[in-house]
Amino acid sequence: MTDNFQSWMDGTRQRVEGALRSMLDSYRGQVPELLAESMAYSLLAGGKRLRPLLVVAAAEAFGASGRERVVTDAAVAIEMIHTYSLIHDDLPAMDNDDFRRGMPTSHRKFGEAAAILAGDGLLTEAFAVVSGGDEPSRLRLCALFARHAGARGMVGGQVDDTVSEREDTEAFLDQVNRRKTGDLLALSCAAGACAAGANDEVIGSMQRIGWLMGHAFQQWDDVLDVEGDPALMGKAAGNDAQQHKLTYPRLIGVEATRQSARNKIQEARALIAPWLPAAAHLDALAGAMIDRKH
Amino acid sequence: MTDNFQSWMDGTRQRVEGALRSMLDSYRGQVPELLAESMAYSLLAGGKRLRPLLVVAAAEAFGASGRERVVTDAAVAIEMIHTYSLIHDDLPAMDNDDFRRGMPTSHRKFGEAAAILAGDGLLTEAFAVVSGGDEPSRLRLCALFARHAGARGMVGGQVDDTVSEREDTEAFLDQVNRRKTGDLLALSCAAGACAAGANDEVIGSMQRIGWLMGHAFQQWDDVLDVEGDPALMGKAAGNDAQQHKLTYPRLIGVEATRQSARNKIQEARALIAPWLPAAAHLDALAGAMIDRKH
Repeated sequence: MTDNFQSWMDGTRQRVEGALRSMLDSYRGQVPELLAESMAYSLLAGGKRLRPLLVVAAAEAFGASGRERVVTDAAVAIEMIHTYSLIHDDLPAMDNDDFRRGMPTSHRKFGEAAAILAGDGLLTEAFAVVSGGDEPSRLRLCALFARHAGARGMVGGQVDDTVSEREDTEAFLDQVNRRKTGDLLALSCAAGACAAGANDEVIGSMQRIGWLMGHAFQQWDDVLDVEGDPALMGKAAGNDAQQHKLTYPRLIGVEATRQSARNKIQEARALIAPWLPAAAHLDALAGAMIDRKH
Repeated sequence: MTDNFQSWMDGTRQRVEGALRSMLDSYRGQVPELLAESMAYSLLAGGKRLRPLLVVAAAEAFGASGRERVVTDAAVAIEMIHTYSLIHDDLPAMDNDDFRRGMPTSHRKFGEAAAILAGDGLLTEAFAVVSGGDEPSRLRLCALFARHAGARGMVGGQVDDTVSEREDTEAFLDQVNRRKTGDLLALSCAAGACAAGANDEVIGSMQRIGWLMGHAFQQWDDVLDVEGDPALMGKAAGNDAQQHKLTYPRLIGVEATRQSARNKIQEARALIAPWLPAAAHLDALAGAMIDRKH
């Protein structure tokens, strides 16, 4: 990772977090205090901001100049969608997690009803952010967000992961990961390109790139859970096996999982190549999905 | 209620339900079966379809000819939002209701995780329906939906109603009702006008009409709970008092509540009057909010 890439990431994160704070400030007097507080609590709890970084990097590939507001709005909205999904995933009826990133989860802090509603609020307000302007690309953005975050995308993946009858096959695991993790990364890349004015064919190619990244990212996470260094990851290894989770290492072995992830990133980078050097940050983000220690 | 109005309502309900079924059919193969089933279960559970009727009636007032698809999409989407809100309201962490319209609630039928996700799916897919076309009015529609259904609207009202510290004042009750019931009716009227191509000033006036209707509707419900005929309502009276609910009759008395509702409908109908006769169905729907037996 070059210093330039690192400083681009730091700067982009700062810009996105500034935009998140401005948006939360604008709720003052408009939104019940408790709701504003619970939305802010989860939205500002840190995290890598991977999805907003992808939005901005994808937009850069197609020249985002003059379209910064739409791009930033798309980046903010996708972080709101991601955050709502974490809040609902953590609920007692779902994963029943008490902590996330070392802090009490939303329902532990505010109660279950407030957590459900904080998620509902973030999801709905994400569409307010996306549709909050006159640029025609915003309509296409709304459609992309709904397609990838909804029943045909992330919510569908969550149902397959937690509620549907599980099949112990690679095809089923592929489908869960494609929807649950992949769809939001596909949305990130597609939304960045869309906000920058790319056409439908390009947007489709960016979706494919995002799905590949998501798949590789999940596979690498599975690898780390088997042989990662707990000190570097900030959590114990071996959780997946203990919980009898359906993972790639369990189905195809660690080495084949590692290789599959590398192949997917190779394919993604081949799709990115025609847009270099403008797509350099997107290319670097693709590379960072694998060969990582945490 | 004239025969014509009744047959218009029947026909419009039929059309909207047909569109809901087509949409659900389109999920086949795209959405996990269990999720499609749980979304369909609540969406097709009956109900008065008041919000879709308002959308269509408001659109008629401004000439919906040639814009039928956008109008129907707005009507379908608002019913999806309304249905998601009922599913989440019924959850154990919220109102903890086992039955709705004589059928087990979503979490009783499918489990709590599936019910949360059915709601999330309906909410997100509502935006897919609204943004599913090229007409420029759809972008404004997305913004209206997010404004009224989100943290500044319905979700905010739900937080005030179930989580925030309750104040026993008319101003607080007004605020809860305005957001919790009023915002979706305001959205219905505004969305119909927007889909029919009305300008911002008209849309603003339609929002006002919807809020007035919502307020009157809630007040009349409160009145019925005190002195309605259980046989006609299909449920026992006196529930609100038993549950120590904050209601208008408790704060200002039954007669003043009835009068307040009538005044609001009078104001709404005065705002509708300039658009008669095209707005005849909207006017009739406003009248039907009060002086009803169930």
